[in-house]
Amino acid sequence: MASVSSQRMSGVLCPVITPFNQDLSPDPDRLIRQCRWLLSQNVGLAVFGTNSEANSLSIEEKMMLLDRLVDAGIDTNRMMAGTGCCALTDTVRLTEHAVNLGCAGALMLPPFYYKGVSDDGLFASFSEVIERVGHSSLRIYLYHIPPVSQVGISLALIERLIKAYPDTVVGVKDSSGDWDNTNAMLQRRWDDFRVFAGAETFLLQNMRGGGAGCISATANINPAAIDRLYREWQSAEAESLQKELDEIRDTAMAYPMIPALKATVAHFSNDAQWRTVRPPLLALADDQCSALVASLLQKGFDMPGLG
Amino acid sequence: MASVSSQRMSGVLCPVITPFNQDLSPDPDRLIRQCRWLLSQNVGLAVFGTNSEANSLSIEEKMMLLDRLVDAGIDTNRMMAGTGCCALTDTVRLTEHAVNLGCAGALMLPPFYYKGVSDDGLFASFSEVIERVGHSSLRIYLYHIPPVSQVGISLALIERLIKAYPDTVVGVKDSSGDWDNTNAMLQRRWDDFRVFAGAETFLLQNMRGGGAGCISATANINPAAIDRLYREWQSAEAESLQKELDEIRDTAMAYPMIPALKATVAHFSNDAQWRTVRPPLLALADDQCSALVASLLQKGFDMPGLG
Repeated sequence: MASVSSQRMSGVLCPVITPFNQDLSPDPDRLIRQCRWLLSQNVGLAVFGTNSEANSLSIEEKMMLLDRLVDAGIDTNRMMAGTGCCALTDTVRLTEHAVNLGCAGALMLPPFYYKGVSDDGLFASFSEVIERVGHSSLRIYLYHIPPVSQVGISLALIERLIKAYPDTVVGVKDSSGDWDNTNAMLQRRWDDFRVFAGAETFLLQNMRGGGAGCISATANINPAAIDRLYREWQSAEAESLQKELDEIRDTAMAYPMIPALKATVAHFSNDAQWRTVRPPLLALADDQCSALVASLLQKGFDMPGLG
Repeated sequence: MASVSSQRMSGVLCPVITPFNQDLSPDPDRLIRQCRWLLSQNVGLAVFGTNSEANSLSIEEKMMLLDRLVDAGIDTNRMMAGTGCCALTDTVRLTEHAVNLGCAGALMLPPFYYKGVSDDGLFASFSEVIERVGHSSLRIYLYHIPPVSQVGISLALIERLIKAYPDTVVGVKDSSGDWDNTNAMLQRRWDDFRVFAGAETFLLQNMRGGGAGCISATANINPAAIDRLYREWQSAEAESLQKELDEIRDTAMAYPMIPALKATVAHFSNDAQWRTVRPPLLALADDQCSALVASLLQKGFDMPGLG
């Protein structure tokens, strides 16, 4: 379970996929149901991550969805909202909204359009956001995902931000796919700093190194098993639990990730509408869906209680 | 002069730098003055390009600036507005606003957060925007700038869009920095399709190949000279005019581009406020500004009538 300790999060969090209606508008009701199911599986909610197609949603759409989740009584203590946008003013507005609603964390991408920007420029960017939001409850988890954003967050920048804002910059999601980078973060032993692996692939290693858990796309389909490894990482079964997680992940990741997660949820909830993605992504074709589901079933995969 | 011919633009257009106040809010009055000066130098206005720090501005800020430009009587026939955002709904909203205000063109980035997307996905994205805006006056200039957006627009995609929307998808800005790519576009001889070089570096080559002109950052500081080459590309002086343009460009580009353009305008308009950029960019330091201006003056550079 993603838990709050000294107002810092840990555990397994899920970058919740965002359901769309036929007209491509986001569907708050399906999202609420999905979040409830995820919480029932003991994982926390990282809404508006990369796998949420968050960057294909406007600020207004994200604020509306947050409002609806909160109105539905979804526990904001278990909620980390992705709030980092290209534009400073958008990031401020969305972060303010999330903090005011009581979200326990903000998962923050750096501004990602301009490339080759300096650490000084990125520091100025995060700093402006923090000062402008100006809220003592703001807890930022830096989102390092250079394969997608192409703008990364260096160790030196993290250290500088922690020094300047020790009660605000409290963690990181490392989606570099580079264990050496995650490990280097852990080795710094920053005070109570929460290092989340960006995928369950590194969950066991991360826990052994003192990490806080993982925030992983696959938690959309395999939450309970990932949470089990988080809880039992010191057990004798840990290695085999990790191996089982890897097999399911590899099976799903044989297809484009977001469409594959949505196709899987669509199948196991018997709700084809879940397959819809927003451009520029494309939904899996019918034959791809069937092949994906068949290969998951072959592994004994199921999503109990879904739908 | 950027002119309207069968509602298609040509000439030299300037991705106008965006002035900020001390509090980093955009300053419509300085922008209006700058646009008037640029028009007086015979170049058109590509507001909200990369060099406008457009991707550091919210949709609301861009709509406000467009409103103010139009209220001030800036000729929308000479205006191409950058409207491509990450989120489909943002691109639709901003494009609608620009078309409704009468802007002659929309310079459209592909959605640029998700990487490795397919031509099918990008086609769906542009197609949704065109269908949703649903305005017969919409004229889209595709914005191909892979060094920054990391998501490019292939020749095959352009061809497909032209076939589907022959009266809407009417041109391209090629900021790949790769002349072979621009040349390949020209060689296709698409009917009345306007190929703009992404920098004046390729202006002469582009005109010789049947191109429409250029949309170049450097037009912020050297508009009249660039426009002269556009008008006189068939003259005996064309090669030497191109060489002079390249020298000024190389001199300015020895520094980070956007801060250098702003520092140059700040100096020649005697208005230091122009130096301000939004994070994640950083303004040039004082000694960099002095060195930049000194090297420009050494080339006999001036910005007559500015400020």
